[in-house]
Amino acid sequence: MPQGQVEVTPDDGLTTRQRRNRPLLAVHTGEMKGKSTAAFGMAMRAWNQGWPIAVYQFVKSAKWKVGEENALTALGRLHEQTGEGGRVVWHKMGSGWSWSRRRGSEVDHAADAAEGWAQIKRDLAAEAFGFYVLDEFTYPITWGWVDVDDVVETLVNRPGRQHVVVTGRNAHPTLVEAADLVVEMHKVKHPMDAGQKGQRGIEW
Amino acid sequence: MPQGQVEVTPDDGLTTRQRRNRPLLAVHTGEMKGKSTAAFGMAMRAWNQGWPIAVYQFVKSAKWKVGEENALTALGRLHEQTGEGGRVVWHKMGSGWSWSRRRGSEVDHAADAAEGWAQIKRDLAAEAFGFYVLDEFTYPITWGWVDVDDVVETLVNRPGRQHVVVTGRNAHPTLVEAADLVVEMHKVKHPMDAGQKGQRGIEW
Repeated sequence: MPQGQVEVTPDDGLTTRQRRNRPLLAVHTGEMKGKSTAAFGMAMRAWNQGWPIAVYQFVKSAKWKVGEENALTALGRLHEQTGEGGRVVWHKMGSGWSWSRRRGSEVDHAADAAEGWAQIKRDLAAEAFGFYVLDEFTYPITWGWVDVDDVVETLVNRPGRQHVVVTGRNAHPTLVEAADLVVEMHKVKHPMDAGQKGQRGIEW
Repeated sequence: MPQGQVEVTPDDGLTTRQRRNRPLLAVHTGEMKGKSTAAFGMAMRAWNQGWPIAVYQFVKSAKWKVGEENALTALGRLHEQTGEGGRVVWHKMGSGWSWSRRRGSEVDHAADAAEGWAQIKRDLAAEAFGFYVLDEFTYPITWGWVDVDDVVETLVNRPGRQHVVVTGRNAHPTLVEAADLVVEMHKVKHPMDAGQKGQRGIEW
């Protein structure tokens, strides 16, 4: 837990306040679970600040993340009812994005991913949200479905005060280079190593 | 993201179902933020399962964790109002534990920590909750305020189906040895290295 010590005073022409309030581009990577979980934990802090939150879930998942989705969207409903916290929008790839009418039986993952990224670009340009989770977004980058240079240029030059967290294994070096905060989740020990399978409430 | 592959089939006399449903003892350690954040993200999944959740926050903190506390206790209030999700109880050390009447001006951290651990033991024995976050609990262990052998024996032999997540730096080797799941959060890059201070909504 960093206690607010600053190791270096940068020569960037910014005041402490400007520097403090610079919006964050974070990457959660590494081979271990906890990348998305920590991003959704951060979303709880963003919700508490009243910031509108958008999640773009880039890997189709029947049950993984359903707990986080239900809890976070419940917080979003609480906001609608009481004004407490912030708005929450949860977009899912695979069964058709929330904003998209197209729900074909023929799924083109590359096109879906490109469509998701195009929406993120529109939302960032419109400053639609204060906190973005681009969940498992490293994979479409790795697979070439979205262009890493376009991603980094868009994220680095996003307007206003929009915090962005990208999760997923094997984050692209160009993205890591551009990020302000990069955390790697490392496995020390996992119950699946001892033959235990995933369980309800823990893994999803 | 483990996809459910099992690397080893253990020779422990348990059926797959018994093994799958074995309650989890997890440790989030390492020098980087995300340890508690990921634990609170897991609590969202537990809430979605309707499990009663208890958080014991072992390090006094004026503002850190306030976002998670507000969001998680908001989910707890939602449960009380609608029956959705699970109950949430948040205990804080330092200003006097929630269950304790004693709120003296003379704070004895060691006694506070021992009192918190005694309550956890009572709650585990009573199977009072389904999901426990023992937040920053590695520190009172490191400082000798609670006995690591007592902690490990109690956690390993806890009755019923109670999941426990312990967070904090420098987890004791005996605790790591006893845990089912151990994740280390490693820093790749942190904005404080570049002179940026902690900011609202991101660090708390």
